[in-house]
Amino acid sequence: MNKKGQLIVISGPSGVGKGTVIQKYLASRDKIVYSVSATTRKPRPGEQHGVHYFFLSCEEFEQLAQQGGMLEYANYNGNYYGTPKAPVEQQRALGNDVVLEIDVQGALQIKKSCQDALLIFIAPPSFAELEARLVGRDTEDAKTVENRLNIAKQELKCAGEYDYVIVNDTVEQAIKRLEQVISANRYHKNNMKEFLDEVNQNA
Amino acid sequence: MNKKGQLIVISGPSGVGKGTVIQKYLASRDKIVYSVSATTRKPRPGEQHGVHYFFLSCEEFEQLAQQGGMLEYANYNGNYYGTPKAPVEQQRALGNDVVLEIDVQGALQIKKSCQDALLIFIAPPSFAELEARLVGRDTEDAKTVENRLNIAKQELKCAGEYDYVIVNDTVEQAIKRLEQVISANRYHKNNMKEFLDEVNQNA
Repeated sequence: MNKKGQLIVISGPSGVGKGTVIQKYLASRDKIVYSVSATTRKPRPGEQHGVHYFFLSCEEFEQLAQQGGMLEYANYNGNYYGTPKAPVEQQRALGNDVVLEIDVQGALQIKKSCQDALLIFIAPPSFAELEARLVGRDTEDAKTVENRLNIAKQELKCAGEYDYVIVNDTVEQAIKRLEQVISANRYHKNNMKEFLDEVNQNA
Repeated sequence: MNKKGQLIVISGPSGVGKGTVIQKYLASRDKIVYSVSATTRKPRPGEQHGVHYFFLSCEEFEQLAQQGGMLEYANYNGNYYGTPKAPVEQQRALGNDVVLEIDVQGALQIKKSCQDALLIFIAPPSFAELEARLVGRDTEDAKTVENRLNIAKQELKCAGEYDYVIVNDTVEQAIKRLEQVISANRYHKNNMKEFLDEVNQNA
């Protein structure tokens, strides 16, 4: 049985450690891939097309979006960023789960267009802990930290719109919770429709 | 932290093996209790009040139901059967999960009155397999088996209204799935509201 893979959308504020949780989780599993975003910004040194981003021209991006070829997209500082639909659907058709690490606005777009998407928000144990992690990074100035915390406040207000909220108190605990949520979602009614149709047709 | 326990409602057709799955699952876990139903039918030999059922008079049952003291109830063959609310809420307040093994009609009543209830349907791998299990029991005559299969058909049509559908192909697999679904549900947005309120208030 080649069951369709799940579409897993993960968001969380800057500094919550979602990148580490996701990468360690992906490394421990088969049949799950990380979705590559598309953008119209120029590649930075070392960035490869199809690996870090799909680098598109503005015309290519807009045409694709107008044709319904983007699961979600937005414009930041004059550049488009988005999730191309075709590679996601190809992977899902092969039975692979696809993980999208995107911001809150993108996640809420996907919630509307893909009813079977699984939305997971990664939250800090407390706001004070998030602040401590961002300050502790020591790579950003006070103004940048303040900006990130202001964005985090807005994002945390949307967390209740996600299906699940996972607290990243320790990376190991957060990975365990992510595993439980993703495993359980295979039995969610949205993913059992085909099975139930078949049982009912033969009853 | 004494987090409120979950209300877990489990249904499934006769012969699917849900009793075995639930009992083995409960035996392997702490902080989870099985809800005792109330009924107005007379106790059978060996049945104890508060263990097998709460045995109530018709007047007691109706009064409790009218006061909103039943999470769900129904009348079968002239006897009432239902789930008293108070013991369920007491256990949940202590942080214990409560499992209700009830029929489809009762489960759908609870879905309306308890938004945070977790509804799980246990399904057979196929209808033919359910038939084989019921015939294989060898304790019921052909007419009884036919009746049970007719009821099963109706119940399976409602499975898509449950949050999760777990297939009982083997007891071990079904228990593992049940464990995943119940564990994951702790992080469901419905169960994370208090946490998110606290984080947002302190942001």
